[in-house]
Amino acid sequence: MSSSGSGGYRGSGLELLKRYGVSAGDAVSISTQEDETINGILMPRYESANENYIVVKLKSGYNTGIKVSRIKSIAKADVLAAAAAAGAAPAATHQKEDAGGSTGSSNSGGLPRVALISTGGTIASKIDYRTGGVRAALSASELYASVPELASIAAVDPEVLMSEYSENLTPTHWTQIAQKVAEKVRTGAYAGVVVSHGTDTMHYTSAALSFALQKLPIPVVLVGAQRSSDRPSSDAALNLIAATAFAANADAAGVFVAMHAGTSDDVVAVHAGTRVRKNHTSRRDAFQSIDAVPVALVRDGATIEMQEDAGVRMERRAKRELELRPYFDSRVALVKYHPGFDPTLVYWLVSKGYGAIVFEGTGLGHVNRDLFGVLREAAEKKVHMFMTSQCIWGRVRMTVYDTGRDLLDIGVVPLSDMISETAVVKAMWALANVPQAADIKKVMQENIAGEISEAIPI
Amino acid sequence: MSSSGSGGYRGSGLELLKRYGVSAGDAVSISTQEDETINGILMPRYESANENYIVVKLKSGYNTGIKVSRIKSIAKADVLAAAAAAGAAPAATHQKEDAGGSTGSSNSGGLPRVALISTGGTIASKIDYRTGGVRAALSASELYASVPELASIAAVDPEVLMSEYSENLTPTHWTQIAQKVAEKVRTGAYAGVVVSHGTDTMHYTSAALSFALQKLPIPVVLVGAQRSSDRPSSDAALNLIAATAFAANADAAGVFVAMHAGTSDDVVAVHAGTRVRKNHTSRRDAFQSIDAVPVALVRDGATIEMQEDAGVRMERRAKRELELRPYFDSRVALVKYHPGFDPTLVYWLVSKGYGAIVFEGTGLGHVNRDLFGVLREAAEKKVHMFMTSQCIWGRVRMTVYDTGRDLLDIGVVPLSDMISETAVVKAMWALANVPQAADIKKVMQENIAGEISEAIPI
Repeated sequence: MSSSGSGGYRGSGLELLKRYGVSAGDAVSISTQEDETINGILMPRYESANENYIVVKLKSGYNTGIKVSRIKSIAKADVLAAAAAAGAAPAATHQKEDAGGSTGSSNSGGLPRVALISTGGTIASKIDYRTGGVRAALSASELYASVPELASIAAVDPEVLMSEYSENLTPTHWTQIAQKVAEKVRTGAYAGVVVSHGTDTMHYTSAALSFALQKLPIPVVLVGAQRSSDRPSSDAALNLIAATAFAANADAAGVFVAMHAGTSDDVVAVHAGTRVRKNHTSRRDAFQSIDAVPVALVRDGATIEMQEDAGVRMERRAKRELELRPYFDSRVALVKYHPGFDPTLVYWLVSKGYGAIVFEGTGLGHVNRDLFGVLREAAEKKVHMFMTSQCIWGRVRMTVYDTGRDLLDIGVVPLSDMISETAVVKAMWALANVPQAADIKKVMQENIAGEISEAIPI
Repeated sequence: MSSSGSGGYRGSGLELLKRYGVSAGDAVSISTQEDETINGILMPRYESANENYIVVKLKSGYNTGIKVSRIKSIAKADVLAAAAAAGAAPAATHQKEDAGGSTGSSNSGGLPRVALISTGGTIASKIDYRTGGVRAALSASELYASVPELASIAAVDPEVLMSEYSENLTPTHWTQIAQKVAEKVRTGAYAGVVVSHGTDTMHYTSAALSFALQKLPIPVVLVGAQRSSDRPSSDAALNLIAATAFAANADAAGVFVAMHAGTSDDVVAVHAGTRVRKNHTSRRDAFQSIDAVPVALVRDGATIEMQEDAGVRMERRAKRELELRPYFDSRVALVKYHPGFDPTLVYWLVSKGYGAIVFEGTGLGHVNRDLFGVLREAAEKKVHMFMTSQCIWGRVRMTVYDTGRDLLDIGVVPLSDMISETAVVKAMWALANVPQAADIKKVMQENIAGEISEAIPI
């Protein structure tokens, strides 16, 4: 957007801000002609707004517009003092430190530190008033400024890594995100990492990070928004607050996704990164744990309720060392079977040099017997083949019907209750990380990050 | 199975049945050596059973084993009298007639007539004790015999059309099923038609029949089972009873799917044929209406509760004439987008002569911009392209983000809330039935059978 950097201000408002060297997101102390002092966070504005006003978020949480002509001077205030003024008062005073100079994930008596990595998506979007659409534009620091409540939860270090709608992300981006998260984790400075992300493929990325970032000592929480953060009904603020609270305080380590748990605006569900799926195009509670309860619920952006039923315990393990395995081999296809499916598609995949095919079969893990011939040839050419179910919920079981037993005989490997989106990501990861082809089948059936809930008897 | 026709009996039990000319499914009146009379339905047995007993289903609903040596004689009883003895008493006496001789869908004072077409699947399966698996084996008449309650609901005329697991069904089978249903409907003899079907692709077939059988005057109800009908926990009996009750009595016309509504064994949900999906690999309530409530609930196999919220009213229209359009063009691919998806797959589909591609995009209907080039080329080659969402629930909206608007510009047609399984079936049907290519886009966006719930603004 043309207004990027200026926070959307123009005309007399923009001139005023330039004169005092402040911009959207700064903590400010404003003196008025009437010698009043107004403390708060300078908020971004948009092109349709009246240029004779600037907007400040007050301690009460309300935004107030201040007429430019009423302002005598603006002083840049201490970020955290202003944040404390604008949000709820933190439990203890806190001085922000450079990551490099820190030796722990919190200061003595201070707030935990959280790294916020922005990748793009709706949570980082605002309405483009020229086209009526939504564009990826808001930077992480602008976002931080928009949600001052964060400063009462953690000392957040924002960084913009990329600015992409998530439908445009590829396995190469997963590698970049994993490397950036690893960089943050390895400083030892952070209690947790939050990754803001578009929702379209957030569950693919969460699966990718789950395999790329092994033995994580702290939580890495992906968060998105179904409605852009400048909309009154946006879910962006609560999701980000809850993700940050979880990253800062939860007794958990691993990769998670935090999104609205329901349509009310008070509870956020935290899902295991390998067991979550986007199940609605637009609802705020689109993300659901599949065949599992969420790992935790975060109420009112603060209270973390770990769910015992979630199974795997993922306690913080401060002393263990992160293993980074960030590479993915894209020669993996996810193929959804349907009646009328053309078996020769499998030939094409083989001829293109694909290393693995993940099928979304029907029911317990079936495809038409007309495919058996091509599958047998693919198996002979050492293409790995895996079976998941397009039912989404439930478990592939290929020993019940003769169709399934025939597929097992051919060499198609059942993946139990692994969801297909996680399966294609894991296969890409396995192909890049497991040197012996013979071990790939074994690794795919082992539980690495909660993606599969039982050993598979064949 | 080797025992097919003998109802699983062997040894002295089989000899006894042969002597009196009765077989599994017959209504029988048994006289014992003690001059007791036992009335009921002779049940099928399986290979592992004790051969010195035969099994009869009593009026109470319980099965009883009768020792062969205790039996003095067996008389074949009137089918319906025995059914009344074994099941609930029918409201009125009823004489079964030949389909050819009938001029209406019920007799004066009698029960409605329902055609039962068997295509295979678990509902028509039993355990193969030699392999431990489940095989499609039970004929429709055996099934009818196993569920004598049916005879108190309707006069059921069973016919075995095919015996296939539904994962093996193709668009050619849909044509055969549609033609067979049309044949039954056109006799004018039936109050409704029930189609027993494997569950793996039952929702694809129900969508296919919804487009192939237009202006249906009566209900056509697909029904399946998640557990085979000889298992104690089978859902086959209740599903079949409810499907038959709905076909016989509901004030509805069109194509439906009847399956367990929950895990308790008393309520069956009836779904619109174009809005239903199998959402669990094994649960009895795997089938769910997507973005809609079920059309009706059937309680205890008898009470039909039409759901007002289901929207479309589908009253019986006895006087309108069925339009049969049973053909499908298989040159349609359903393609699920995922990160790492290879754009050249689209080239391959174009080169193979595909007429249409239905994408399962992410979120509101997106794919990576890396695909725009190949999609533009496909559009130039007059390949129809449609967009659905892999979120399953919710509505494709391609005007919200610039990715979506770019896809609209290329010519990708959004299908609103049509589920992808229905969309691929409808596209196969449209290609075979809509002569002008220019009209195919229009037909795909029109509501024909409840598959799309709004006009789509572009």
